Amino acid sequence: MKLADHRPQSRADFHDRLRRIGVERYHDRHPFHKRLHGGECSGDEVRAWVINRWQYQSRIPMKDAAFMSRLEDPQLRRIWRSRIEDHDGGVDAGGGIRRWLALAQAVGLDPDYVASGVGVLPATRFAVDAYVRFVRDMPLLDAVAASLTEMFAPKIHAERIEGLLKHYDFADETSLAYFRNRLTEARKDVEFGLTYVLDHADTLEKQDAAAAALTFKTDVLWAQLDALWNGYVEGRTPPGAWRPGEGMARLQQGADMVGVS
Amino acid sequence: MKLADHRPQSRADFHDRLRRIGVERYHDRHPFHKRLHGGECSGDEVRAWVINRWQYQSRIPMKDAAFMSRLEDPQLRRIWRSRIEDHDGGVDAGGGIRRWLALAQAVGLDPDYVASGVGVLPATRFAVDAYVRFVRDMPLLDAVAASLTEMFAPKIHAERIEGLLKHYDFADETSLAYFRNRLTEARKDVEFGLTYVLDHADTLEKQDAAAAALTFKTDVLWAQLDALWNGYVEGRTPPGAWRPGEGMARLQQGADMVGVS
Repeated sequence: MKLADHRPQSRADFHDRLRRIGVERYHDRHPFHKRLHGGECSGDEVRAWVINRWQYQSRIPMKDAAFMSRLEDPQLRRIWRSRIEDHDGGVDAGGGIRRWLALAQAVGLDPDYVASGVGVLPATRFAVDAYVRFVRDMPLLDAVAASLTEMFAPKIHAERIEGLLKHYDFADETSLAYFRNRLTEARKDVEFGLTYVLDHADTLEKQDAAAAALTFKTDVLWAQLDALWNGYVEGRTPPGAWRPGEGMARLQQGADMVGVS
Repeated sequence: MKLADHRPQSRADFHDRLRRIGVERYHDRHPFHKRLHGGECSGDEVRAWVINRWQYQSRIPMKDAAFMSRLEDPQLRRIWRSRIEDHDGGVDAGGGIRRWLALAQAVGLDPDYVASGVGVLPATRFAVDAYVRFVRDMPLLDAVAASLTEMFAPKIHAERIEGLLKHYDFADETSLAYFRNRLTEARKDVEFGLTYVLDHADTLEKQDAAAAALTFKTDVLWAQLDALWNGYVEGRTPPGAWRPGEGMARLQQGADMVGVS
């Protein structure tokens, strides 16, 4: 019997394989993003995106805490903790998810409504929960590999800032602060995560698992935009999901946000 | 049929019930602690305590991350995160668990050996794992209630600092820095945790569950000292556990610690 060839890919080939997953499957290719960045979204489509993307943003620190809860190496925990600090921020200042609520307010939504998660599409919730569970339950290498969609994020954030500023009145440096911050935060995270994955995927089996994890994560992101397209571009809004006119701010835009997450 | 009386205890009575659990069951009453604080422990008994207590200390940030991974309220996550910051500290400075390794070094142990967890008693590991799982799986109220052994900690830490300084040559402000810091850190944490439990245990059923959680936690702490007594005071050391002479520092005490967690 001749054994199959199980030699791992070279570091460069494996890195290229991960990059190609982004080229082929990252959600910058989704028609909803082309519509959003091209200025073709209605105000309500933008609001639906802000409401549903909150569900993803707000679960990211829980995902990172689930990962940290499995790390026996204190130094790795210390490094990973900065992701939670970026998103949650301090008790007073808040962080990325509070900046997301500034975007919610800029598009006329009540930030408390958005933070409540009421009206999020069930398909969004399922996709996000699947990601949190994946990171909690799967091997550490797979969990880190799933985070590597951040390799592709700076490009989409730069496109988004440019597209939104060009096409929408609500867009300014305050409302888009979330994306501006992610340009630098994501770069720091991906540098660590990519090195970790390239270092630890030292067999073909682990490389395959890491590539599958990254593919899974692109599915998590893509599924959210499919749900958004179905619910708000095609207008097949499922029961219980946000309807235009709901959750609008009663305060003037620019007023102090109170009681927000 | 007459329904049973399920009215909750008053806030004061419930608080008193929690305090009594500490009076009756907290591990300050364990003979090992009386022996340790009274200066009757041999050097090897102290070392066994330092090695095994590391297992508990080093899992506390994982326990707190598991708790955070279940918190949907960003503000609660931000507040709870300070516990991880206290124990893990920053990438360069470290925190409580690195201060624990300073104690390890002061009693002649190699901090890398202690940090490796090799030689920890299986019963210690089981007790600590049971606590981490409890916090990951049980209702949030029970998880917070289990942390309330911290109500009783400042007293034992003060007794310990006094007893160790009086009786042991290794004890000084550097080696005991862990306990000195906990005097203030634990007070801040317990104030928040106690208020949370008193506020949220609003039915008799929840009060019973919270009291059971705190009782469980006292068991977790007590079981670790029973294992220590059995293994090192009685000398019935189980297979694979640390033996005197193992894991000793090759460096002079006071030399720079390198490569420690």
